Amino acid sequence: MEKNIEIYIDKLASKAPTPGGGGVAALAASLGAALASMVCNLTIGKPKYAQFEDELKEIVTEAQILSKKCLELAAEDEVAFEPLSRAYSLPSTTDEEKRIKDEVLESALVRAANVPMMSAQAACDAIDIHRRLVERGSKLVISDVGVGVQMARAALLSAALNVKINTKLMKNRAVADKMNEQIEALIKKGSAAADDVYCAVSNMLE
Amino acid sequence: MEKNIEIYIDKLASKAPTPGGGGVAALAASLGAALASMVCNLTIGKPKYAQFEDELKEIVTEAQILSKKCLELAAEDEVAFEPLSRAYSLPSTTDEEKRIKDEVLESALVRAANVPMMSAQAACDAIDIHRRLVERGSKLVISDVGVGVQMARAALLSAALNVKINTKLMKNRAVADKMNEQIEALIKKGSAAADDVYCAVSNMLE
Repeated sequence: MEKNIEIYIDKLASKAPTPGGGGVAALAASLGAALASMVCNLTIGKPKYAQFEDELKEIVTEAQILSKKCLELAAEDEVAFEPLSRAYSLPSTTDEEKRIKDEVLESALVRAANVPMMSAQAACDAIDIHRRLVERGSKLVISDVGVGVQMARAALLSAALNVKINTKLMKNRAVADKMNEQIEALIKKGSAAADDVYCAVSNMLE
Repeated sequence: MEKNIEIYIDKLASKAPTPGGGGVAALAASLGAALASMVCNLTIGKPKYAQFEDELKEIVTEAQILSKKCLELAAEDEVAFEPLSRAYSLPSTTDEEKRIKDEVLESALVRAANVPMMSAQAACDAIDIHRRLVERGSKLVISDVGVGVQMARAALLSAALNVKINTKLMKNRAVADKMNEQIEALIKKGSAAADDVYCAVSNMLE
C-alpha cells in the first residue's frame, strides 16, 4: 500500500512534467471525499445515528462518485498539460506561424484552466458534504470530518492557482476575467465554509 | 500510476480501521514536501537562478528527507492505532482489570498522539521550505509552491485534530495540556506562515 504511494510521490518530486500541482489539487479533493465516505461507512448501522441513516446512505453515494471524479480530474490534468507544452514549442518566426501559435496556445490555455476549475468545484462539493457530516457523522470519527474538509480546502486553493497560472497568459481577457471571477467566487464561498466546518470539529475535541 | 492511488483511496473510503485521517495528514505533508523537491529540481541548472543554486541543492535534500519521513509517519500512524484499539477491548469488570486497562490505554493514547505531533512538526518544516522557495523557485513553477504550502497547511491542521482526539481522552491532564499547548503553538506559527506564502504566490499570478 505505502509502496504504491511512494512511487507516485517519487515521480511528483522529480523533474517529470507530470504529475504536478494540478494533479495534487485533484488528488487532495479525492482524499477529502474518500474521508467523507469513510465517516459515513463507520456511522451507518449505528443505532445512535439511525435517524440519519437514509441521509448518510445518500451522502456516501455522492462522496464515492465525487472521489472517483476527482481521480479522473487528476488524470485529465496530466492530459491537458500536453497540448499546452506542445503549443509552446511551435515555431513563431513568420507572422503566419505566430498567428497559428497564438491560436493553438489560447485554446490549450482554456483547456488547461478548465480542469482545475472543475477540481475547484469538486472541492467545494466535498466541503459541502463534510458540512452535512458535522452533525450526522459518528462522534468517534469526527476528527476525520475535519481532516477531510482540510484536504478539500487545500484542493480548492491549490486548484485556484492552477486556474490563474493559465488565465494570466490568455490573450482573450474577457474569457480570462470570467474564469478569474468564477474561481474567486468559489474560493470565497468554499474556504469560509471549510473554516466553519473545521472550527466546529475542533470545538468538539476541546 | 493512478491505479495505485485508487487502491489507497478505496481502502481509505472503506470501514477498514486504517488508513484514516492521521495517515492522510502525514501523506499530505509528504505531498507538500515532494512538490518542494519538484520546484527545486525544475529550477536547479537554470542560469536565471544560478545565484540560488547552492541553496536550492540544500533545500532539495531537506525536502526529499522530509517527504520520506512523512510517508514513514503515515505508516507509523497505522501501527500506533492498533495498541489503542486493543486497549479499548480489554476487560474492565474487576478493579484490577480497570486499573490495568486505564494504564494500557493511557500509554497507547500518548503513543497515538505522538505520531500526529511529529506530522504537525514535519508539516511546519515543509511550510518553512516553501517560504524559502517563494523567492528562489523558478517563476514558471511558482504555482507549485502555493500548492505545496496548501498541502502542508492542511497536514498541520489535520494532524492537530489527531493530537486532540487522543489528548482529550488522557487521564493525565498535565501530559495532555502540555501536548495541547505544543500543537496550538505549531498551528499558530505554521498556519500564519503558510497563509503568507500562499498569498505571495497568488499575488505573483495576478
